[in-house]
Amino acid sequence: MLIAIDAGGTSTRCAVVTPAGRVIGYGRAGSGNAVSVGMASAFAAHAAAVATALATAGVSGSTVTGGVTATAGFSIHGDAAEKYRAALAGIGVSAPVHFGSDALAGYFSGTASLDGYVLISGTGAAALRVRAGITVAVADGLGWLLGDVGSGYWIGRAVVRAALADLEGRGPHTKLTPQLIAELGLTDEYVDDQHRSSFVTEIMKRVYPEPPVFLARFAHLAFEVLSEDDVAQGIINEAASGLAATLDAVLQQPESDTPTSVVATGGVLSGQPELRDRITFDLAARGRAVEFIPVSDGLAGAVSLALRDAGVDVDEALLSRIRADLATLAP
Amino acid sequence: MLIAIDAGGTSTRCAVVTPAGRVIGYGRAGSGNAVSVGMASAFAAHAAAVATALATAGVSGSTVTGGVTATAGFSIHGDAAEKYRAALAGIGVSAPVHFGSDALAGYFSGTASLDGYVLISGTGAAALRVRAGITVAVADGLGWLLGDVGSGYWIGRAVVRAALADLEGRGPHTKLTPQLIAELGLTDEYVDDQHRSSFVTEIMKRVYPEPPVFLARFAHLAFEVLSEDDVAQGIINEAASGLAATLDAVLQQPESDTPTSVVATGGVLSGQPELRDRITFDLAARGRAVEFIPVSDGLAGAVSLALRDAGVDVDEALLSRIRADLATLAP
Repeated sequence: MLIAIDAGGTSTRCAVVTPAGRVIGYGRAGSGNAVSVGMASAFAAHAAAVATALATAGVSGSTVTGGVTATAGFSIHGDAAEKYRAALAGIGVSAPVHFGSDALAGYFSGTASLDGYVLISGTGAAALRVRAGITVAVADGLGWLLGDVGSGYWIGRAVVRAALADLEGRGPHTKLTPQLIAELGLTDEYVDDQHRSSFVTEIMKRVYPEPPVFLARFAHLAFEVLSEDDVAQGIINEAASGLAATLDAVLQQPESDTPTSVVATGGVLSGQPELRDRITFDLAARGRAVEFIPVSDGLAGAVSLALRDAGVDVDEALLSRIRADLATLAP
Repeated sequence: MLIAIDAGGTSTRCAVVTPAGRVIGYGRAGSGNAVSVGMASAFAAHAAAVATALATAGVSGSTVTGGVTATAGFSIHGDAAEKYRAALAGIGVSAPVHFGSDALAGYFSGTASLDGYVLISGTGAAALRVRAGITVAVADGLGWLLGDVGSGYWIGRAVVRAALADLEGRGPHTKLTPQLIAELGLTDEYVDDQHRSSFVTEIMKRVYPEPPVFLARFAHLAFEVLSEDDVAQGIINEAASGLAATLDAVLQQPESDTPTSVVATGGVLSGQPELRDRITFDLAARGRAVEFIPVSDGLAGAVSLALRDAGVDVDEALLSRIRADLATLAP
């Protein structure tokens, strides 16, 4: 048996796969992102997802001969890799598990082709050029402080900053403000002796103690008021333009009228057709024709990576069956 | 005797003042900003500056009957205030020292008027409306993650992000890139197996381990290439527009052709006339006429605050003499 794990900030999912490519077990646990919840908690979630997947498959950990773990936002090596293997050994899995990127897992969830492109906007953002199944060029993915243009973090940060500017009279009125106030459950506004709204102080108190990337949880507010709010439109247009530039930096497009297929993954990009439309529009203005394949889950790609690692050729037919198997097991 | 302390990220300065308002001692030590260097190191710098100032005045700590400490970026209260008083007691100063904001110290360095405005852009950014010597309205000052629009941090972050976008082909070419590379002493660029420049990787390695606000040290690069670089101009224009909005949020301007005087403080705003000019221009477009009084040092204002605390009326003549005394003692 092989195991494939796709770990993100929200959940960790594991599939158990036969060498013939049938998915026979599935498990889900909490956040598997060490940046969000710390390494111990993240690795415990990985082990829990694997244990559940093995149980639903009705096989023991000793039947596992290999696998792939795809993670976002951090790479596992050295001491962390030892701790990771110890966590899996604790549930009886001692076979070597390789570490892959969530970006490549996302890519192979969308296509069986060994050559292509993937654009990601989840908590972070990046674009990859894939050749012969390997990442040969990457743009952005530089993290919340220095990069991740157009990511959930980037949008969420812009949302909160726009609401604060509105509350202070430094920026235009925006529907993002009441949305954010409602999201945080703030009530009973008062003005302090420096003429500052208690809502401003409360937002600071909530956000600063958390890791900065937690701002990504506010990104959805921009999409919710998009059709009726200029400030939200400005944020999403700028995010789209940034993501278009990121993808453009890795695209090698022949002179042709046929659009290039690009896998679109990450919670923000896969979930927001408005964002994909704006990126397509922006790229068209740069003379680039692309067609997005949205992929909301990297687990099928992680399964593909595990099978390829074991020498199995994954074609479109097999990828479709993997997706169908997963849809049955994890409805 | 009274003591007045102005503490910033670069240095901590102390003045010893007679009740008649003559500055008779001056001392300088390292960073007094607890956010930058930690509380223990910051408070040690405060004590060292005070000790030097008392020594140059030729008086002992027991002659001190009060004083004011003006700090940026953090407020001292509770446990920290106890530790602060212990640090001063260690050099013989047991008189109560009050804590004030660097913003108000900056304001009173520029004017003796009890009513007016101050705009700050140093590592952070904020605007204050002062009435009867008290801050009655504040805008921004919300910190690096959620505010500080147009601050040194804000500009420095934009500089590094622009250089990275250039290096990755995601953004336009800019002179900021070679400037940043030179500033960091990076040489021998190579391209890794994901087509990523080693300069990108090196910049990430240098910046991420540091506190985010350290990005402020790159702000000067934008001003250095300002006249010859569109990207730098875009950054500084946006900073100016943000600072104009911040000041506008606290301005109460009568219908008049006389420009309102605004003290301009913080290392970026006091040191960069180009930035002040752009803010003035931006405000004029909003129908606001302002005239900046640039102030590079908050110590004269901290002395004023200490004297006011002790019941001394500080008029423009006394403020001028305080400035002259300080210029003699700290040339």
